[in-house]
Amino acid sequence: MQRYKCVISYDGSGFSGYQVQPNKRTVQLELETVLAKMHKGEQVKIAGSGRTDAGVHAKGQVIHFDSSLPIPEDKWEMALNSMLPADISVLSVEKASESFHARFDATGKEYRYQLLLSVKRDPFQRNFVYQYPYQLDIDAMQEASKYFLGTHDFTSFCASKTEVVDKVRTIEIIDFVLDGDLLTIRFIGNGFLYNMVRILVGTLLEVGSGERKPAHLADILAGKDRRFAGKTAPAHGLYLWEVFYK
Amino acid sequence: MQRYKCVISYDGSGFSGYQVQPNKRTVQLELETVLAKMHKGEQVKIAGSGRTDAGVHAKGQVIHFDSSLPIPEDKWEMALNSMLPADISVLSVEKASESFHARFDATGKEYRYQLLLSVKRDPFQRNFVYQYPYQLDIDAMQEASKYFLGTHDFTSFCASKTEVVDKVRTIEIIDFVLDGDLLTIRFIGNGFLYNMVRILVGTLLEVGSGERKPAHLADILAGKDRRFAGKTAPAHGLYLWEVFYK
Repeated sequence: MQRYKCVISYDGSGFSGYQVQPNKRTVQLELETVLAKMHKGEQVKIAGSGRTDAGVHAKGQVIHFDSSLPIPEDKWEMALNSMLPADISVLSVEKASESFHARFDATGKEYRYQLLLSVKRDPFQRNFVYQYPYQLDIDAMQEASKYFLGTHDFTSFCASKTEVVDKVRTIEIIDFVLDGDLLTIRFIGNGFLYNMVRILVGTLLEVGSGERKPAHLADILAGKDRRFAGKTAPAHGLYLWEVFYK
Repeated sequence: MQRYKCVISYDGSGFSGYQVQPNKRTVQLELETVLAKMHKGEQVKIAGSGRTDAGVHAKGQVIHFDSSLPIPEDKWEMALNSMLPADISVLSVEKASESFHARFDATGKEYRYQLLLSVKRDPFQRNFVYQYPYQLDIDAMQEASKYFLGTHDFTSFCASKTEVVDKVRTIEIIDFVLDGDLLTIRFIGNGFLYNMVRILVGTLLEVGSGERKPAHLADILAGKDRRFAGKTAPAHGLYLWEVFYK
């Protein structure tokens, strides 16, 4: 038996998220279906670095699985891609130690959120960026984002149904890149709670629109209640960009 | 009654082409449905610069229609966009003379064909570029494309079911732009026959792959038979980019 680490990319538009759910098309289901076919019907479980919601994209999701098939390491990528649907692509497959775990060994993640700052609708980007046609004070958003840097209890910034008990996370980097009318907000941290990036973005947008003052974010963090934070930004602007390992 | 000229963009992935067909979702149907709603159920016919096939995209298709609604010229764009589905966008609406005709007044068109020259699949581009993972001699394609420039009978380069009698067209520009692994082939001419750009591209690809010599294209043109030319390149790499008027 050999463990493999596999980096995948997917367009989240056609999936009910990453994780298997009854009667839903999910990324995990598509991958496990292909692996089962390759293993003559035998079930092969995969483990991902974490789930992504319906509509959320991945440029560098990481999964692992075990197989005893005699496929050379450099042939796995093509073997999987030849059977996967066009909205999932395997970017790399490499042998991993038998103790490697895509989720538990991850030391950090990068997410990016893409906003189209335009009143013009773009049919080609409708599933890939969140169109925000209003005035936005990006300087105020940058100032506000500094309150999130470092180690905090992010209870106010995760979906209230989150089951995880420890809601302390460390965010190392939040930066803003404006390229034409495309604004990309990048988040790098040691981990992110359920809906956390989307709620951070939704709250930053309320600062950018003038509804909230940047300094108000300190109060929201201190309040430890989801109701204090802003709206959850739409899924289709969010990308799981990279997962980091030692 | 006022005539309006309207530039629209659409992601062709979800449409059975531009033109109305029974029981199919088409661009014309969606536009006429919205116009009928705005006109309290009264049918409003639109005329396009030409049809596009299923899967073909438009960055600058032009249509016209007549209306007596008292909507100011600068409010039409938003009025239409607020009711159209997300895969069609109106880019501009302006008053036109009552004799303006989107099809008959067009003096030329620009089409672009986009190829992804990569062995890596990209889930985010799967509907927007034709992935070509093999070796391609772009210099040979450029040499070959010169045979198409100028005025020719393009009978060999249109679908055999084409009903148009006069198959003489003039192509003014064909150029190639390679940006990373994205190859864009641009065609500007006074008009294009049914499937013509896709057959030109399919034939150029057979030159690029070494299956045909550039000089062979003169024989194909002279032969005036669809069977002499190459395959029809897939629809999803093609964009109606711009329609020109005097």
